[in-house]
Formats: sequence, C-alpha cells, structure tokens
Amino acid sequence: MPKKMNGPGGGERPSVRELLRVPLGERVDLSAYDTGGTPGGTWAPQSKAVGLAATEALAPRLAALQERLFASSTAGDRRRLLLVLQGMDTSGKGGTVKHVAGHFNPSGCRIRAFKAPTPEESEHPFLWRVAQAVPLPGEIGVFDRSHYEDVLVARVRELATPPVIEDRYGQIARFEQALADEGVTLVKVFLHLSHEEQRARLLERLDDPDKHWKFNPGDIDDRALWPAYQEAYEIALERCATDRTPWYLVPADRKWYRNWAISSLLLEHLEELDPQYPRGDFDVTECRRRLLTA
Amino acid sequence: MPKKMNGPGGGERPSVRELLRVPLGERVDLSAYDTGGTPGGTWAPQSKAVGLAATEALAPRLAALQERLFASSTAGDRRRLLLVLQGMDTSGKGGTVKHVAGHFNPSGCRIRAFKAPTPEESEHPFLWRVAQAVPLPGEIGVFDRSHYEDVLVARVRELATPPVIEDRYGQIARFEQALADEGVTLVKVFLHLSHEEQRARLLERLDDPDKHWKFNPGDIDDRALWPAYQEAYEIALERCATDRTPWYLVPADRKWYRNWAISSLLLEHLEELDPQYPRGDFDVTECRRRLLTA
Repeated sequence: MPKKMNGPGGGERPSVRELLRVPLGERVDLSAYDTGGTPGGTWAPQSKAVGLAATEALAPRLAALQERLFASSTAGDRRRLLLVLQGMDTSGKGGTVKHVAGHFNPSGCRIRAFKAPTPEESEHPFLWRVAQAVPLPGEIGVFDRSHYEDVLVARVRELATPPVIEDRYGQIARFEQALADEGVTLVKVFLHLSHEEQRARLLERLDDPDKHWKFNPGDIDDRALWPAYQEAYEIALERCATDRTPWYLVPADRKWYRNWAISSLLLEHLEELDPQYPRGDFDVTECRRRLLTA
Repeated sequence: MPKKMNGPGGGERPSVRELLRVPLGERVDLSAYDTGGTPGGTWAPQSKAVGLAATEALAPRLAALQERLFASSTAGDRRRLLLVLQGMDTSGKGGTVKHVAGHFNPSGCRIRAFKAPTPEESEHPFLWRVAQAVPLPGEIGVFDRSHYEDVLVARVRELATPPVIEDRYGQIARFEQALADEGVTLVKVFLHLSHEEQRARLLERLDDPDKHWKFNPGDIDDRALWPAYQEAYEIALERCATDRTPWYLVPADRKWYRNWAISSLLLEHLEELDPQYPRGDFDVTECRRRLLTA
C-alpha cells in the first residue's frame, strides 16, 4: 500500500499513487477528469516554474534507487519496474521517455516503442512481441504504447472481430498478473489530453518544418474518432485493472505537471520496493591485502 | 575525413578524432601512451573543472544531432552510430555509458553490455550475439565490451585455440566493414588505464560496502595477466583497424577527460554525418485547414 508522505507544509499528505489511481470496480468516465488539472493541492506543484524544479529535485533520488534495484538483481533479486504509457497522439508518451526515463542510467533501461505490428508480429498472438520486451530483473522498462493498442486502435478501427477483442481483456489481465507474480511492478499511465490541446500540438508540429517528421496526416482522421477512442480507453481502464495492476490517470495538457506526476509515481513505487545493495560474499580484508601486492 | 575545428583561442585546431586515432599500419605500443594524459594542449580541457563544464556544453549539441539522426531514419536514411567500448576492468566503460550516453534521448539508444557468453550464445558463431545488438537506422548504439572479447580474454585465458583466435581477426575486420557498408559509423574506443589506477579503483570499491556488488575477487587474478592483456589489446588495435573502422585510444585515468574526449568523438562523427530533418510530403496548408475544423 502507498505510504503517507510529508508534503512541503510538513503535514501528512496522500501519495501521488492514491491521488491519480483510477478507482477500481467503478465505471470510468474520462469526461469527469480535468485534462488541464494539477491534482495535489498545496503539496503538488501548481506552476510551471515550481513543477520543473520539483521534477529536477526527484532525478537524483530516482537514479539512486535505480542503481540499487540493478545492484540487487546481481544477487538474485528478480524485481523490476515497467512503466506503460498510453494516450492519444501528442499526449506526451515520447516526451515522458525523454524527460523522465532520461533521468535513469541508460544501461539499466529497456525502452520499447510499439508501432503497428510487423508481418512477423502479426503471425503471433498479440502478447508475443510484448512479452519479449519485458524488462529483465533489475531493469526499468518503458513501453511507449503497449498491448493495450490491441483493445484500443484494434477496437476503434475494427482490426479484429468483437469476440476477439472481448477475449483480449481477460488475456491482458492474466498476462499482467503473471508479470506481477514474476516480480514486475507495473506502473500503467494513461495520459489524459484534451481534444483542444491535441489540436494545438498538431498545429505546432505543422508550423515547424523540423517537426514535420512527427506529423502524419492520418492523425487528423483519428480526431474524428476521438469519442470512440475515449470510450475504448474507458473500457480498458475499467476492465484491465486490479489492486496489483491499477491504472493511473495523469492530466497531460501541462507537460511540466505530467513529468512531475510520472516521476513521482516512479519514485513512490521504487521507494516501496526499497532495493538494497547486496553485501559481498568475499573476504574484504584478504582482497585488500592481495590487491595491495598485485 | 575529420574537419578542422576552431579551438577556444579561435585558431584552427586538429579534431579530437585526429588526436586520438591510433595510427594505421604501425606496431601499437601501449606503453608509449600516457594513461593519465590530457591530449589536446591548449584547446582541450586541462583541469577537472574545465573538463566537466566543456563536456556539459557538448550535451545539447549531441542531443540535437541524435534527434536529427533519428528523424532522418523515418524518411529512409539507414545511417546510425555505434560506440564500442573496450578496456580493462574499472577503465570506465560503465561510467561512459552513464555519463556520455546519458545525454541522449534513451528512446533512440540501443545499449548492450556483453558478459561471458551464455550456453545458447556459445552454440553460435562468436559474432552472432553481436550482430543482433547492432543499432537500427537512426539509433545510437553502445557496446560495453564487444566481439573484441573473443580475441582478448579468449586469447589471454586460452578459451579458444590459436588458429581459431587467429581467424577471428579477419572475421572481425570483415564484419565491421560490412557494418560500415550498411551505414553504421563505428566509433571504437580503447580506454587506456594504468595498472596503478586500476588498483586504486578496485580498492575504492572494496572500501565502500555499497560498491561490493561491482567487485569480483577474480578481478585481482586478472591483474596478474595484465601484460598479456596489454599485448592482446595491441594486436587487436593493430589488426582490426582500417581507415573506415579506426581505433581511438582515450587516456582513462582521469574520468573527466575520458568523458570529454568520448563526447567530442561522438560529436565530431555526428557532425560529419550531418543528418537532416526530413521534409514532410504532405500539403501543410490543407492539413492546417482540416485541423482547424477537426
């Protein structure tokens, strides 16, 4: 269970995990969540300047915990963390990888962006390519898109029949349960962006020729399907969440809040794992003596 | 060919590539190179404070070029860069990944640390596992150890017969030539550490219980084989270098110089590649019009 933490004012405050976790066993109504919000009240940053500084302050703590997690794996600890990022185009999945995962030592990260399946991937069950990208013990994994696309775009664009889609929710839930059993801490984040903010971000890409490579005219067509996508997300967030594999909803219209919130989520999960440097199983005095003469 | 660059004094100066490249077609004598040196004279940093600041100043340029390289690959550019790190234990391979590769966007990096081959890897030709880890177009790859271990530890510890080892030099040279033909810019770096500095670094690990996980008593045994390793490196540096796949020798006793030198090497190679953002092949005005109503 998330620990209570002390806020800037010194008082007990809820964890960011409690704050952003999508409630279990309820209908999810995305329209009830403010995409431009900065949940957390007085103990969460409420301005860009404060948010950037607060996120920067988390970086060394994240890096230190990552090193411990990796070190611990060298002594047989099987635990690892997997951040799953989902959200509409321009919601900030890539930006999160750059600005949040960028704080970690890259040698301990396993980052994978999932595109439309290749012909080889399509020959396999939909979870095949995902299982291969799971972080190894001690690693921090990041999925930029994931197996959820198989119940999101696949549902909206009817890339599979309704019974096939229907079956996938259960498969996903069992797959994630198995990951959790193997020591994978899943941090599943839905980046909640507004229709208006997406328009602004797409226009920004159009206005800068150096960003045209990120622009796909098909992204405009997808906007016509916005309500269908929101509905598909609501179903996925509702049906593929358990106490051990919850969803977090991060308001994504403000990039600085998004980076702070996701950094905080990772930090709280790593702190709960509390990985320890393993003790050496060698004779330190003897090794020192040998080294001094070697 | 490396471009001439302007030094801090404004005058023309040699590139770091020219400065650190191991000459081709000559016997390599590692004892002739100072492990504690800071080659570059007045235009290279000569103190830790200056070195750290100079390296920090390169970071945004490296990140910008990486983004261009990645962007260019989305339009079919097959080029990519592969940094190969070799050196004795504690010479700073891991530190380079953390401090140099850490400046890049992790989503465009493919980092691989090679350990002793697994049983499966041993069943395959020695280049098999290496070929699988080559960066994709647009990516920056880093090898922490590499195929060179198969002519280094394998030679010193007699893990293969002399004729097998002998054959591998040619295989490595042809493999690297093939990579270059496919658009892979190889930056092969030998981290040149002194026997004394290694002792100091191993003692440091022993003295700090939080670093015991990095310590292996077998590393002390390897010190007895130091001359054999140096000789194996000399042979590898001599026989596996061409104009397109040269070796760079980086003095590694000073970490700040090492990070500056390798950052500079990467920057010069990326600047020579000079990747460009691809132009969009869509009608910007029409897309903007559609977006404003979508």
